[in-house]
Amino acid sequence: MAVYTDITDEELAALLADFDLGQPLSLKGVAEGVENSNFLLETEAGRYFLTVYERRVRPDDLPFFLELLRWIAGRGFPSATPIPDRQGNLLKTVRGKPCAIVSFLSGLSVRRPSAAHCREAGAGLAQLHLAAEGFPRTRPNDLGQAAWAPLFASLASAADALKPGLAKTISSDLELLAFRWPRELPQGVIHADYFPDNVFFTAGKFSGAIDFYFACVDAFAYDIAVALNAWCFEPDGSFNITSARQLVAGYETRRKLSTLERSALPVLAHGAAMRFFLTRLHDWGATPAGALVRPKDPLEYERKLAVHRASPDLVLYGAPA
Amino acid sequence: MAVYTDITDEELAALLADFDLGQPLSLKGVAEGVENSNFLLETEAGRYFLTVYERRVRPDDLPFFLELLRWIAGRGFPSATPIPDRQGNLLKTVRGKPCAIVSFLSGLSVRRPSAAHCREAGAGLAQLHLAAEGFPRTRPNDLGQAAWAPLFASLASAADALKPGLAKTISSDLELLAFRWPRELPQGVIHADYFPDNVFFTAGKFSGAIDFYFACVDAFAYDIAVALNAWCFEPDGSFNITSARQLVAGYETRRKLSTLERSALPVLAHGAAMRFFLTRLHDWGATPAGALVRPKDPLEYERKLAVHRASPDLVLYGAPA
Repeated sequence: MAVYTDITDEELAALLADFDLGQPLSLKGVAEGVENSNFLLETEAGRYFLTVYERRVRPDDLPFFLELLRWIAGRGFPSATPIPDRQGNLLKTVRGKPCAIVSFLSGLSVRRPSAAHCREAGAGLAQLHLAAEGFPRTRPNDLGQAAWAPLFASLASAADALKPGLAKTISSDLELLAFRWPRELPQGVIHADYFPDNVFFTAGKFSGAIDFYFACVDAFAYDIAVALNAWCFEPDGSFNITSARQLVAGYETRRKLSTLERSALPVLAHGAAMRFFLTRLHDWGATPAGALVRPKDPLEYERKLAVHRASPDLVLYGAPA
Repeated sequence: MAVYTDITDEELAALLADFDLGQPLSLKGVAEGVENSNFLLETEAGRYFLTVYERRVRPDDLPFFLELLRWIAGRGFPSATPIPDRQGNLLKTVRGKPCAIVSFLSGLSVRRPSAAHCREAGAGLAQLHLAAEGFPRTRPNDLGQAAWAPLFASLASAADALKPGLAKTISSDLELLAFRWPRELPQGVIHADYFPDNVFFTAGKFSGAIDFYFACVDAFAYDIAVALNAWCFEPDGSFNITSARQLVAGYETRRKLSTLERSALPVLAHGAAMRFFLTRLHDWGATPAGALVRPKDPLEYERKLAVHRASPDLVLYGAPA
């Protein structure tokens, strides 16, 4: 949960004066989004989200994110669309911080996704990849494979503190991933954080995705690999092959995977687990004791890493032959 | 901000199965309410608040609060009305905790109320007092004058830690308040926590009040005294006579004060400042360092106490002669 920025009625009125959204009717800080402050905003014109970008988001990246949201919404992808002010600006300022007003997106995220949810989520992810086709801006994946070894350099002792001997195992993983990482896969805009809490369902059907603040250009199949880690592990740590198969099958109802993409899924999934392990390990140590946001447990992803390490082809059982 | 209870899509579906509200469309934890967890709930039938009562609210008190909300809503007071399930129950359970679904109330609270806001707020408070007339249930004010000395008994050293010598001053205040406390004032249901963040405005006009979880039967004028403390002090600690006059005048547009009530306002305001000073002092010491809720500063109310102590008739300048 996170609401870092407090907005007064006067600041809200000043912001809305630039828009054609009528008078504000209500504003509620929402316990959602770790990177930003989010408010549910109701005006005479309807319901919106007001997102205030906190320090973790680089201001230079905001035009990419906001224009992307506008682009995919224009191509029928259900997401929160940024609302331009009267001058056509998507990016605004409140309390000296960048912010945007986006449309409200209905839907519920699921805590424990079923295989049917995974199928829907997979189809939604492919829909996103297709909707983003032709988007003219680009943004590198700054948490991609090339970033992991440098990121780990300062975290070796944190890894050993988490679990004795872990640093050595991670180093060996990183070497393997660098060696085996596929570099010729079809690329495009990916979500890069396609977790169950960022995906909405209505009556069991995919109804949209939110939180595009890691979106970047990278391999489409890497986005599937992130999702396989996020959606297809059971609470006991086991990998659910049925869910994985449904996620990939759902994806392929909209976009077929090439043989190269399919055969890359295991190493991509191993790498995706590494990416989330490393950032969680980093946040675990970096979060002050009294912080309002509880960091996510890096051990969850350490266990997923171990699964991929022990059964390097496991993910393939979830991919159609 | 506070969302202590997490609700899964499955738990929400089970709860909604008892209601005629259709399928859930969205659920957002809201950073509002220190005592409870609050969710903005959208269903096919409309928008609601789902409130989960956490340990600070006594379950035995919940029927009083919920029936009161239904009663005043039935008499035209704009507040969040509890929605009965198919069996007519207002009080439900989710995750083993008591909860209720209430109607959504639009409006914005103001951070720095103007004198005009104070007038509107005063009129709204009188409207509440009148709407609650005849409500058949009762609940004592367990944070009323009789509770202060026992509450302070365990806080004397905390007071001295806050400010050396403060414990002696507070003890002397408590004696004075016990001696001068008026006991013959007109009584009824009062809000007892009528602070700016619990009062909504739409286009500058009073549009409702929320957070009735301190409501009880006590002197109507005591409710005004709480509001004078909460609404009429400037950030520099000075008491704004103009705002106070408007608050009382706004109140009297709907319910005239008797001479006895008006002349009691100074001691009631001194006592109301004591009530919030004591509970804040208590929470200040009782909140663990890593807690998600930041306790409110007791010094704010220590300064208000000092103003009432130094100028015992100051509040009267805000009351019409």
